[in-house]
Amino acid sequence: MKRVMDFRWRHGLSVAELVGMLGSIGFQGSEITRASDVIVKMKKDGAKIFLTFTSNMATSGLRGFFAQLIELGMVHAVVTTVGSIEEDIMKAFGEEFIIGKFAQDDLELHEKGINRVGNLFIRNESYLNFEDRIGKMLQVLYRKKQRWPVSEMIHEIGLMLDDKSSILHQAAGKNVPVFCPGVTDGAFGFHLFMLQQKHPDFVVDVVKDFSNIMFSTTHDDKKGLISLGGGISKHHAILSCLLSGGLDYAVYMTTAHSTSGSMSGATTDEAKSWGKVKDDSDVATVIGDVSFTFPLAMTGALEKLEMEGLLK
Amino acid sequence: MKRVMDFRWRHGLSVAELVGMLGSIGFQGSEITRASDVIVKMKKDGAKIFLTFTSNMATSGLRGFFAQLIELGMVHAVVTTVGSIEEDIMKAFGEEFIIGKFAQDDLELHEKGINRVGNLFIRNESYLNFEDRIGKMLQVLYRKKQRWPVSEMIHEIGLMLDDKSSILHQAAGKNVPVFCPGVTDGAFGFHLFMLQQKHPDFVVDVVKDFSNIMFSTTHDDKKGLISLGGGISKHHAILSCLLSGGLDYAVYMTTAHSTSGSMSGATTDEAKSWGKVKDDSDVATVIGDVSFTFPLAMTGALEKLEMEGLLK
Amino acid sequence: MKRVMDFRWRHGLSVAELVGMLGSIGFQGSEITRASDVIVKMKKDGAKIFLTFTSNMATSGLRGFFAQLIELGMVHAVVTTVGSIEEDIMKAFGEEFIIGKFAQDDLELHEKGINRVGNLFIRNESYLNFEDRIGKMLQVLYRKKQRWPVSEMIHEIGLMLDDKSSILHQAAGKNVPVFCPGVTDGAFGFHLFMLQQKHPDFVVDVVKDFSNIMFSTTHDDKKGLISLGGGISKHHAILSCLLSGGLDYAVYMTTAHSTSGSMSGATTDEAKSWGKVKDDSDVATVIGDVSFTFPLAMTGALEKLEMEGLLK
Amino acid sequence: MKRVMDFRWRHGLSVAELVGMLGSIGFQGSEITRASDVIVKMKKDGAKIFLTFTSNMATSGLRGFFAQLIELGMVHAVVTTVGSIEEDIMKAFGEEFIIGKFAQDDLELHEKGINRVGNLFIRNESYLNFEDRIGKMLQVLYRKKQRWPVSEMIHEIGLMLDDKSSILHQAAGKNVPVFCPGVTDGAFGFHLFMLQQKHPDFVVDVVKDFSNIMFSTTHDDKKGLISLGGGISKHHAILSCLLSGGLDYAVYMTTAHSTSGSMSGATTDEAKSWGKVKDDSDVATVIGDVSFTFPLAMTGALEKLEMEGLLK
Repeated sequence: MKRVMDFRWRHGLSVAELVGMLGSIGFQGSEITRASDVIVKMKKDGAKIFLTFTSNMATSGLRGFFAQLIELGMVHAVVTTVGSIEEDIMKAFGEEFIIGKFAQDDLELHEKGINRVGNLFIRNESYLNFEDRIGKMLQVLYRKKQRWPVSEMIHEIGLMLDDKSSILHQAAGKNVPVFCPGVTDGAFGFHLFMLQQKHPDFVVDVVKDFSNIMFSTTHDDKKGLISLGGGISKHHAILSCLLSGGLDYAVYMTTAHSTSGSMSGATTDEAKSWGKVKDDSDVATVIGDVSFTFPLAMTGALEKLEMEGLLK
Repeated sequence: MKRVMDFRWRHGLSVAELVGMLGSIGFQGSEITRASDVIVKMKKDGAKIFLTFTSNMATSGLRGFFAQLIELGMVHAVVTTVGSIEEDIMKAFGEEFIIGKFAQDDLELHEKGINRVGNLFIRNESYLNFEDRIGKMLQVLYRKKQRWPVSEMIHEIGLMLDDKSSILHQAAGKNVPVFCPGVTDGAFGFHLFMLQQKHPDFVVDVVKDFSNIMFSTTHDDKKGLISLGGGISKHHAILSCLLSGGLDYAVYMTTAHSTSGSMSGATTDEAKSWGKVKDDSDVATVIGDVSFTFPLAMTGALEKLEMEGLLK
Repeated sequence: MKRVMDFRWRHGLSVAELVGMLGSIGFQGSEITRASDVIVKMKKDGAKIFLTFTSNMATSGLRGFFAQLIELGMVHAVVTTVGSIEEDIMKAFGEEFIIGKFAQDDLELHEKGINRVGNLFIRNESYLNFEDRIGKMLQVLYRKKQRWPVSEMIHEIGLMLDDKSSILHQAAGKNVPVFCPGVTDGAFGFHLFMLQQKHPDFVVDVVKDFSNIMFSTTHDDKKGLISLGGGISKHHAILSCLLSGGLDYAVYMTTAHSTSGSMSGATTDEAKSWGKVKDDSDVATVIGDVSFTFPLAMTGALEKLEMEGLLK
Repeated sequence: MKRVMDFRWRHGLSVAELVGMLGSIGFQGSEITRASDVIVKMKKDGAKIFLTFTSNMATSGLRGFFAQLIELGMVHAVVTTVGSIEEDIMKAFGEEFIIGKFAQDDLELHEKGINRVGNLFIRNESYLNFEDRIGKMLQVLYRKKQRWPVSEMIHEIGLMLDDKSSILHQAAGKNVPVFCPGVTDGAFGFHLFMLQQKHPDFVVDVVKDFSNIMFSTTHDDKKGLISLGGGISKHHAILSCLLSGGLDYAVYMTTAHSTSGSMSGATTDEAKSWGKVKDDSDVATVIGDVSFTFPLAMTGALEKLEMEGLLK
């Protein structure tokens, strides 16, 4: 039985110490500590770890952190939406995004050629530069073969990038598959369409990729999930693990609540009714903005794993 | 300049009257009225109307309402996730879902073979019955051709259903395309995989469907969006309209807030910075659970349209 | 066992019918219906009904609805914050509030002498007119006696108002006490201070008002609560009912979630651990903006009560 | 113009470093950094700093942090609800609260004499012990005088406590007033009532305390606010600062959103329309659970102030 403990600041406090102390503060603070602990456990237990996130997180500075986690061997499969793929590539080619404000004159931004994602700004030129490059990359892929499962296509693109902070680059280097079940939903989709216009035999094989994600783990594997935000990425990772027996470890970090029945707000309890999460699994759900809940919880976990020599 | 007016109940109050009165209450009440008005305007203006929703809404009793709206000529394209397709088919074959509770012993539910979606329950048998049927349906499709854009596949399935409350059935009857950019993300995906195992030449052509949704409207069309919930469905409809010049009318109904930069919480203002929504467009954003905000706002709109003889 | 039913619109749908149908849609829709049913039950059972709300709801058009509910005998005690008292008085003297927008240039509003509450606007003049009047009213009260429990002061003010849509006017007429445990927290507090400056023997007796609310019900009374929003008003009504044995019926309507441990988001389940709500009580919690959830659920209840001849 | 920067973990990361890096991640992470910076500025500028919080935060381990901040000279006035006063006293007498779970069998807890606040548990005995003590303390106060402004009463109680982690103890030692505009709303109110039953001349003078908070700052003072959560505590501090010319610095940390027009979710922009926050003030609003957003932002600020020798 754990007691509430009075938090007291001391000079030089490390993130690892703070995460330890949050556990005794209560409310979502306790959940941060639990999330951190569950991540440590899944790693120690040798689980195959799925990381899922929505594209706004790749827009943010978390993008480099995701790449680092892959580099450190903390992630065995990624599931995300196509916006993440696009923006990871843009950044790998040097495009810079700006920290702006939530409350803006959006018509004025539009006139200036600036697109807003919350309090982040992306210039039209970044998109134009991306479109130039992605068209050429897809040509290269087509010359190799005509029928591409999504994750294999993303792997090839990752090999073409040279940026240690790139998710795709690190994933390609570590043979970590990046799944994207809704690959056409973005500018990328438009360029796939352009290629198919030219080459009608060009096919993106999403069904093959379903078998790729399904067979990325077995019933015998321990399986862990770190799900940031909700939507199709969260569901797709859970589904694939359900098909190989259910998750042993699950950390959900989201701003969505369970009261409207959405997947984004669905809890690890709800997951148990489906067998998505095993009865005796270790789970944590943290409600809050991932831009700070994830660096907090994950840093807490990395420090512990580093001390035990469990990071590459 | 509109004044706040004291709401007073009177016996026999109709929904249309209530929606009118909410506009003078303030806060999200005013937004309900605005949403209702924008829907009336988009219909009167002859706009092509996109309806998007997440799969939990097809789990709920809104499913029959979506079907009715298609029947009434209020919807020209649907975008949703594959869970909606699955559950619409289940219900078309008579499966019944149960109103339960949010707080449940989920392990007990799991033992009883019951899966929970918020406060709704789906029995395992419903899934088993679905899987029986969908396998056979896909066999029929494969015999017709080997390469299927998603919306054409869904259209064919709709023709096989006989239930006036079915989204797919009504959509097929009215030639309203149903787009599903993440079609493998569900039990349906598993059956596509099974079919491809048997017939390696079976291909689901998501790239072709990108051109289908893109060309479902032109720059000359007036375009309207009714987006319920967030995620890939919301984004996909917005993207396709952006590619043909941007939306003239947009109603967003969601529980997500704009503070975390997610697509689910993105506002119509943010959309203006991208040109997704035109500068002078008519827009409304309602924060709240769609299970009641949508029936309220939409009934308000239908009553007005009915009175003007604008419903089929 | 209740089934999910497909919602279908029909021309002329009444609010009562809609509320009935929401119960079969699921998610928060079902909770609206449950809330409506619990309100009917508490009235039928002869419970003493507490209504609590935050001051922004008196800013909105709900103010007249609260007055009407008192007039109809649906409410036996009100608990609110002092902003509600102030704005009810302003409106009783003819001040008009405006429906504006959430996103505004607030510096520009400030220069124009307009104060914003969400999407509602209050002009400085409305405050100035209020301050003129309240000063005089308090003088009258002071001449009657020097020591005033809050609810008795509010009762006297209610008698001075002549507006059927005024909460205070209706409450005074029906001898419904209006409690305001934080009475100094507003412009009203400033005028109490001014009076005390002049007359140091003037005392607002909040302790006496604690006994007034505590003895407003007995252990033998059935007790019901309709709590809109959270904060001190919600807690104060619950506390007073706890002291006389706990609530038999409770409806919480709020936008706050339970995940941060706040009173505003506290659920009826949490209340059971305290004995605030009896074990076998009838309860409902609706998550959503009260500007539409309350008119919906309450209209549903009033229609049923009207049909059974239970309204005055 | 600030750029989004890729976050990368490094071993031994301090909280101060993390807070610095969050500013380049985006979304609410950027707001954490801004909040931290505004707190540094208000301290450097010699502002009088108001700290407000809701009672659940005193239930949590933040209670000792609030005490420490007073000890460090970071706070010049506190505004809170009476639950905070009660629980601070309980803890000062050694009562321990437990970290439990959000999802619990609340009837079972009730039978065991355990009261739940989110995921924190308080035993009935803690309340009983508190009630023993508070009764005696109030007797002592009454013997000194019969008419008590709230903050003076709380000051006297603080002098009777001996616990360095007690908010009241530290505040009394530093002559930091603790305001509680709704002082009767709790078990404390019941004991005030008991005392008045015995001694009818006992009066809690809330009107005098209004002048105490109003005159705790002048127009000439720089004024800063750190508001945690919403409700009456937030509003009361803002109101008192409005009356002396408006805030120069404001940090709002809350889980409430602005979409329902509540005070809890009201933004610093809305505050500008009222003159509550000056036009050229430095402000930050962080959406998230205070149990971790506040330790993060505040530790960031304390480290900077420590380095510049600005902490006592």
